[in-house]
Amino acid sequence: MDFNNFSNVSFIEKGINDLEKITEHDRPYTRLVFSKEFYQARDWLGEQFNLLDLAISKDEAGNLIGLYKSKVKTDKVVIIGSHIDTVPSGGRFDGIAGVVSALNVIKYIKEHDIDLPFNLAVYDYLGEELNDWGISCIGSRGIAGVLNEDILSRTDSSGRVLSQEIDKIGGNSKLLNGPLPIIKNIIACLELHIEQGKVLENNKIDIGIVRSIPSISRYTVNISGQAGHSGTILMNQRADALIVASEIIIFVNKLALKLSRKSNQHFVATIGKINVYPNSAAIIPGLVELTIDLRAVSKNSRNEFINTLEKKITSINEASECKATVKDIAYAPYVEMNKDLNVLFKNSSDYFGLSSNIMDSGAGHDTAQLARVVPASMIFISCKDGLSHCPEEFAKITDIAKGTAVLIKMILNLVNFK
Amino acid sequence: MDFNNFSNVSFIEKGINDLEKITEHDRPYTRLVFSKEFYQARDWLGEQFNLLDLAISKDEAGNLIGLYKSKVKTDKVVIIGSHIDTVPSGGRFDGIAGVVSALNVIKYIKEHDIDLPFNLAVYDYLGEELNDWGISCIGSRGIAGVLNEDILSRTDSSGRVLSQEIDKIGGNSKLLNGPLPIIKNIIACLELHIEQGKVLENNKIDIGIVRSIPSISRYTVNISGQAGHSGTILMNQRADALIVASEIIIFVNKLALKLSRKSNQHFVATIGKINVYPNSAAIIPGLVELTIDLRAVSKNSRNEFINTLEKKITSINEASECKATVKDIAYAPYVEMNKDLNVLFKNSSDYFGLSSNIMDSGAGHDTAQLARVVPASMIFISCKDGLSHCPEEFAKITDIAKGTAVLIKMILNLVNFK
Repeated sequence: MDFNNFSNVSFIEKGINDLEKITEHDRPYTRLVFSKEFYQARDWLGEQFNLLDLAISKDEAGNLIGLYKSKVKTDKVVIIGSHIDTVPSGGRFDGIAGVVSALNVIKYIKEHDIDLPFNLAVYDYLGEELNDWGISCIGSRGIAGVLNEDILSRTDSSGRVLSQEIDKIGGNSKLLNGPLPIIKNIIACLELHIEQGKVLENNKIDIGIVRSIPSISRYTVNISGQAGHSGTILMNQRADALIVASEIIIFVNKLALKLSRKSNQHFVATIGKINVYPNSAAIIPGLVELTIDLRAVSKNSRNEFINTLEKKITSINEASECKATVKDIAYAPYVEMNKDLNVLFKNSSDYFGLSSNIMDSGAGHDTAQLARVVPASMIFISCKDGLSHCPEEFAKITDIAKGTAVLIKMILNLVNFK
Repeated sequence: MDFNNFSNVSFIEKGINDLEKITEHDRPYTRLVFSKEFYQARDWLGEQFNLLDLAISKDEAGNLIGLYKSKVKTDKVVIIGSHIDTVPSGGRFDGIAGVVSALNVIKYIKEHDIDLPFNLAVYDYLGEELNDWGISCIGSRGIAGVLNEDILSRTDSSGRVLSQEIDKIGGNSKLLNGPLPIIKNIIACLELHIEQGKVLENNKIDIGIVRSIPSISRYTVNISGQAGHSGTILMNQRADALIVASEIIIFVNKLALKLSRKSNQHFVATIGKINVYPNSAAIIPGLVELTIDLRAVSKNSRNEFINTLEKKITSINEASECKATVKDIAYAPYVEMNKDLNVLFKNSSDYFGLSSNIMDSGAGHDTAQLARVVPASMIFISCKDGLSHCPEEFAKITDIAKGTAVLIKMILNLVNFK
């Protein structure tokens, strides 16, 4: 079967084009959660839901939902979707491809007047990308019941409290104290996403069927020294927090290189964010904050990383005038996707004669949160040079259309899925 | 003679207290050049000039001037003063002590109805502290004629052009193409400043008479790599600009330590400012900008520093996926203060029985710019623990009063200075 008989290339292209225009003007493509641009994009998505006659609602976690109701009376639901927020200067396809693809699924089901024995819901999961509150996957964590008071009460650099932002967008943060009631009715959560790596492209494979998503841990490292005049404080009198921060940055990189070779499983550690105070050329840095982002399949590697880092920091503190401390700020465990759903994904892909491969994800996803509590899985489609989280991120519309066809066929195949 | 017969402790205290209130609310004591707070502080200074019946004007470089006119007709002028801008989270005394002290000089001369054979001008030199345009001492460089088109056309991070800001505050940037005409009439430029080091405090000396000010060089280092997803790009596939930046930060620190020991003269190098793009925890840094601030008495040490750094960067570029480049953005040469003025400063200090010491400055000052074209010198007074450019910066009012008395006596001694 030709996938073009199922998915609609021009519909997908229009969705991608519409959303890429909703960006911070000075740094495309940026649509941070809770920003002006994010609210605009949700308005756009609400319009699309209206055009498809979906019932629009928001849940306690602030997820935006468009519901295609079954003609039979049922509470059972299959969820498809992804996210419309981006990282700073981030991608045009990361998350967006999955949302537009889900809209195309509904369009197909509707146009073909297909009777489903379950409701079909399109979700825009709230704030999937890591944000200024040091947390990612707000909406899907909310569904899974793993947002806690420590996270909800955090403030960002401009003083906004996370729980208040969730409430403002239509959630109800007071009720986020456990898994949401809907999980007992969920048959499956399915997501299409760009791979954000090079496996599919290098091996010329159409569809990646995701086996597992690594654990993601985030730590902050605070280094306090003593600010002072860059001209008058002699070199041997300094407690320069940026020197110690630089040592830690280099150490984390070397340790991650070593552990990734040693474990022979996915292992990456990144320091992408650094705040220096006061960050002025004529002042010795008095305080530096680093954020470490760690992704590991192996629990042993993860433990070895953090234990080795803590030892290093103890020895740095002993030898330095500065004091460094590590704090654990977020954690999502290693999860495996539902094996039965993956068999169905394979069958759906085969139906169109597309090549597929079972593979592990490098990136975290909403589906990783949901897989903790309900049957869930996802498929990847190829993206250029594996680039993502940068303006160069690119995926071919035809590749998204191939994945969309697989997703449509998957919904049809789910009719007998228990 | 008791210095209290000359200077006025409560007048000085009020000036310091008034100015410390004019700060960015969230990070005392911050009054960046051209900011709202800076304009407010200039209004305050204008009022003080009015109370002292000074003729108020601004010169082409945007310096604010309060002129006490001689009773004889003359163009000759002695300049006293300092600056009222601060670094971020900067000091309550750096610059401010010198401006308030200059007001006290006028108050004394006026109250004692002293006939001076020259005009006496209080200057608030525009923007002494290093700013977002990568330049310090805007006003005094303007007088000395060393602002060039490259500097004047720079924009800060919010797009403000330096020349336009100078014009907006009352200067005339088009006429800043050489030393200002006033320099032919200047008899002496004198400045009181906190030491910003520990020499006076450790040795219990009242007055530091400045012999020299080191050269100040500023460089930016740009490191470009490739931004990408922190989860999917494997450790051995990365071009992480922050790793290379960290190597450079550590190298600069080690090299400066070595050269400061080797030269046995004042030598410090600092990286106080780092901009990382996009600075987000889940994105590998694609671009980093560093600013190096270098202060050296010895020209050889300075040359050795920059040559060694450039070699290091060449070898880093050869071994790395990133590319680093160095750019020279500002330079002020090593200067010596006027020796005859320093003899008079010593006599003035002796007059009150104060202890004094000839010493080298670690910090740069407006007087360093002015000393390039006119007779100029400055005195230091003690500050607590040598701390400066940080909120903890502190100087005793009585120490400022001692220095102020020396400055008053200095003006009286200048009557016969040619």
